[in-house]
Amino acid sequence: MSAVDFGAFVADLATQSGRAILPFFRALHATEDKSRGGVFDPVTEGDRAGESVMRHMIKRQFPAHGVLGEEFGSENTDAEYVWVLDPIDGTRAFISGIPVWGTLIGLTRNGVPVYGMMHQPFSGERYSGDGREARYEGPGGPKKLRTRQTTDFATATLMTTSPALFKGAEAKAFARVEKEVRLSRYGCDCYAYCMLAAGHVDLVIESGLKPYDIVALIPIIEGAGGIVTSWDGGSAAGGGRILAAGSKALHEAAMALLAG
Amino acid sequence: MSAVDFGAFVADLATQSGRAILPFFRALHATEDKSRGGVFDPVTEGDRAGESVMRHMIKRQFPAHGVLGEEFGSENTDAEYVWVLDPIDGTRAFISGIPVWGTLIGLTRNGVPVYGMMHQPFSGERYSGDGREARYEGPGGPKKLRTRQTTDFATATLMTTSPALFKGAEAKAFARVEKEVRLSRYGCDCYAYCMLAAGHVDLVIESGLKPYDIVALIPIIEGAGGIVTSWDGGSAAGGGRILAAGSKALHEAAMALLAG
Repeated sequence: MSAVDFGAFVADLATQSGRAILPFFRALHATEDKSRGGVFDPVTEGDRAGESVMRHMIKRQFPAHGVLGEEFGSENTDAEYVWVLDPIDGTRAFISGIPVWGTLIGLTRNGVPVYGMMHQPFSGERYSGDGREARYEGPGGPKKLRTRQTTDFATATLMTTSPALFKGAEAKAFARVEKEVRLSRYGCDCYAYCMLAAGHVDLVIESGLKPYDIVALIPIIEGAGGIVTSWDGGSAAGGGRILAAGSKALHEAAMALLAG
Repeated sequence: MSAVDFGAFVADLATQSGRAILPFFRALHATEDKSRGGVFDPVTEGDRAGESVMRHMIKRQFPAHGVLGEEFGSENTDAEYVWVLDPIDGTRAFISGIPVWGTLIGLTRNGVPVYGMMHQPFSGERYSGDGREARYEGPGGPKKLRTRQTTDFATATLMTTSPALFKGAEAKAFARVEKEVRLSRYGCDCYAYCMLAAGHVDLVIESGLKPYDIVALIPIIEGAGGIVTSWDGGSAAGGGRILAAGSKALHEAAMALLAG
């Protein structure tokens, strides 16, 4: 079974998790502080509801597969296939009512991301890819996703979730790139990588990502012709410091600036 | 004719301008630099198309009314009724593919904002108000809009388009408020004020606004129970430095912090 055959199942996961999550969006709901006094890190009931639904469906359909999720941890992650789930990536956007959060559904085979989808259930947008091609479904769609081949910082748009998430040397490295670009925008999480895959922005730079923040996005970005790696050019699948670019030239130039 | 009777006409303006603008969203399109070498300030063909449609409809229906628009300037602004239009508020979001821009349609009577709508044609959201009540239509709707009655910075969410838009003393004033709140978010324009009207966020602080950036939003915010003024408590209708809050207590506390 090739990775592409998982597409219909992933579409079902998106539909069902969206139904579980959406009632909590823009509804009054309790949040809690995961880090107990540290950085504000809201977790919603919608997060748990969405991940529960997906885990249940995966266990029923593919009992031998592993699951790594944001809310309920790891199960059987030595399996050939492992699902990597973040029911609500962008919880700060979610609790602020802004539809630039998304449900991330990734699949790895022997540790390599082979399929991914970002689902935005409020706007009905789905971005998916298998590393060879990537597509969009939603308002105005469907269409193939292709990155923009910007090669010059002077015409590039850069995105990051928040510049405040970079500390010390990381903040200086980010600032070196930000100084060069035409436009920088804050406040999206997974949505930024999908705008890159769709050719609307050129660079995404982040740090401190977990695997479930990025695994699902890798086959979308690569399927659209983009490049996503760690800041030093290694695999992005482990999370950490992530650099995504629409073109190889811009990726190399940004990697050089980040290195100092 | 009371201001409320304009509601159906405004809904038509939104529908028709949305049809004119939406083909340019996420499409390849030229941008130009309004300020010729200064801050990047994109203007799209969609901006002009949306405003042209609305001006045409207003002239046909209400030939005695004035119009003040972002793209095509002022006409007959001494009239009793003046329409205040921004076809694409949030052009930076627009050119980045992110649906947190909106079409702003405001109406003043003898200089006082009496009706307003924010239309987001990609997601199909409409936020409208007449200063006494405010409503949402769109996915999950319709519903009445009510601000959240947060009174304490420690549980408040603050929004602004970008902290980089504040300079000198303004930047310090903004930082004094940002330091106190639980969460601050960047990257929305008109959308932030609608999230405040809907009770998802508590404060919006901006500077350098033009009348067409804020006039349409005033009857929405006030209709939802919120307060929107200049930083020193004067009328917001002239633009400039704007402070919006969901509750009177938070508005007063923020105004004191901004004053230093």
